[in-house]
Amino acid sequence: MSWLPNLKTETAEEGFELAIKLSRMAVKKTQPDDATRTKLRDDYANSADSLTLASQVVATNFQTVAAANDYWR
Amino acid sequence: MSWLPNLKTETAEEGFELAIKLSRMAVKKTQPDDATRTKLRDDYANSADSLTLASQVVATNFQTVAAANDYWR
Amino acid sequence: MSWLPNLKTETAEEGFELAIKLSRMAVKKTQPDDATRTKLRDDYANSADSLTLASQVVATNFQTVAAANDYWR
Amino acid sequence: MSWLPNLKTETAEEGFELAIKLSRMAVKKTQPDDATRTKLRDDYANSADSLTLASQVVATNFQTVAAANDYWR
Amino acid sequence: MSWLPNLKTETAEEGFELAIKLSRMAVKKTQPDDATRTKLRDDYANSADSLTLASQVVATNFQTVAAANDYWR
Amino acid sequence: MSWLPNLKTETAEEGFELAIKLSRMAVKKTQPDDATRTKLRDDYANSADSLTLASQVVATNFQTVAAANDYWR
Repeated sequence: MSWLPNLKTETAEEGFELAIKLSRMAVKKTQPDDATRTKLRDDYANSADSLTLASQVVATNFQTVAAANDYWR
Repeated sequence: MSWLPNLKTETAEEGFELAIKLSRMAVKKTQPDDATRTKLRDDYANSADSLTLASQVVATNFQTVAAANDYWR
Repeated sequence: MSWLPNLKTETAEEGFELAIKLSRMAVKKTQPDDATRTKLRDDYANSADSLTLASQVVATNFQTVAAANDYWR
Repeated sequence: MSWLPNLKTETAEEGFELAIKLSRMAVKKTQPDDATRTKLRDDYANSADSLTLASQVVATNFQTVAAANDYWR
Repeated sequence: MSWLPNLKTETAEEGFELAIKLSRMAVKKTQPDDATRTKLRDDYANSADSLTLASQVVATNFQTVAAANDYWR
Repeated sequence: MSWLPNLKTETAEEGFELAIKLSRMAVKKTQPDDATRTKLRDDYANSADSLTLASQVVATNFQTVAAANDYWR
């Protein structure tokens, strides 16, 4: 089964979760090693700017998911 | 109850507040520990570039919220 | 009275000013202390990259304001 | 044959793969030497912020691919 | 007379020039001192990453100008 | 003759090439000296993050070119 068959979600909150998933999946595709990603996670989860950059990626993906769902209007 | 049932707001100002909330929520999802986030907040609230990066995330989320509300036209 | 009742402006130039205002307001919401912001302003107003990052935020907000005004067509 | 005849994909997942391809192709056009890119890959695959920046590029390209496919609706 | 009455240009090339103007104007609004900006220009015109960041701002503004002109279609 | 009469391309691949051209042209407008740009190119072509930032600019310009061509649908 596909991890991303489409971009449809029931609510805006689920759409936000999907945006987070997309952001992490792009990282996983570049660094597939789970142990390395876990180690790096400790780094950026304790850096203000790293968290802000991560939030920027989520915001960009949320634009896509929101448009795909016609903004849950 | 969902923290984000939809993206509808009454005014542009409330939409801007929602954009800020989305920006912070993405950080919270990556760093759920309140004490750590509070400590980091002191860091970036006193760095010009950190504040600018945070403002960039808000701007990106505000694009989404504004589109969802048809720009409050 | 709201500081942002809507995104409507008469001209593109006023829209650009509103984009600057939105960019600064996001900073203010994170760092509400006026004295701190004034001090930080001296920092980034003398750094080329800081000014470019600030210009990026304005550009992003200007996209939103321009769309809201149907590009003043 | 063109490496990018169009932006059409069957599913959102394939669209995400195309977004990754676009992101890497832009790098390849600037640094065409395979050995250099492989060496640099080791660098950024072990840096949290580098991975986040790469994820940002994928998110931006995914916006384009998703729009091109009418969000696989 | 307004420096930006509207976003209309005759050609895509003129639109690109307008995007550059918008990018610089945002900098000027933050750092109005001509001598300081000239000095900073020497800095970033000799840094690869600074030039790339500046190019990012132009790209963002060009999106706005292009949409305003219906992509000169 | 204009270097950018319009944003029309035959294929998505040509559109991607145009996005690269736009990204480089913005740099050239800020640093017109060919020798300096060539020297800087050596710098960023050997830095993972510099290449990622450059890829981000291309992605942003590709959004514009793709929209201008109705995504080559």
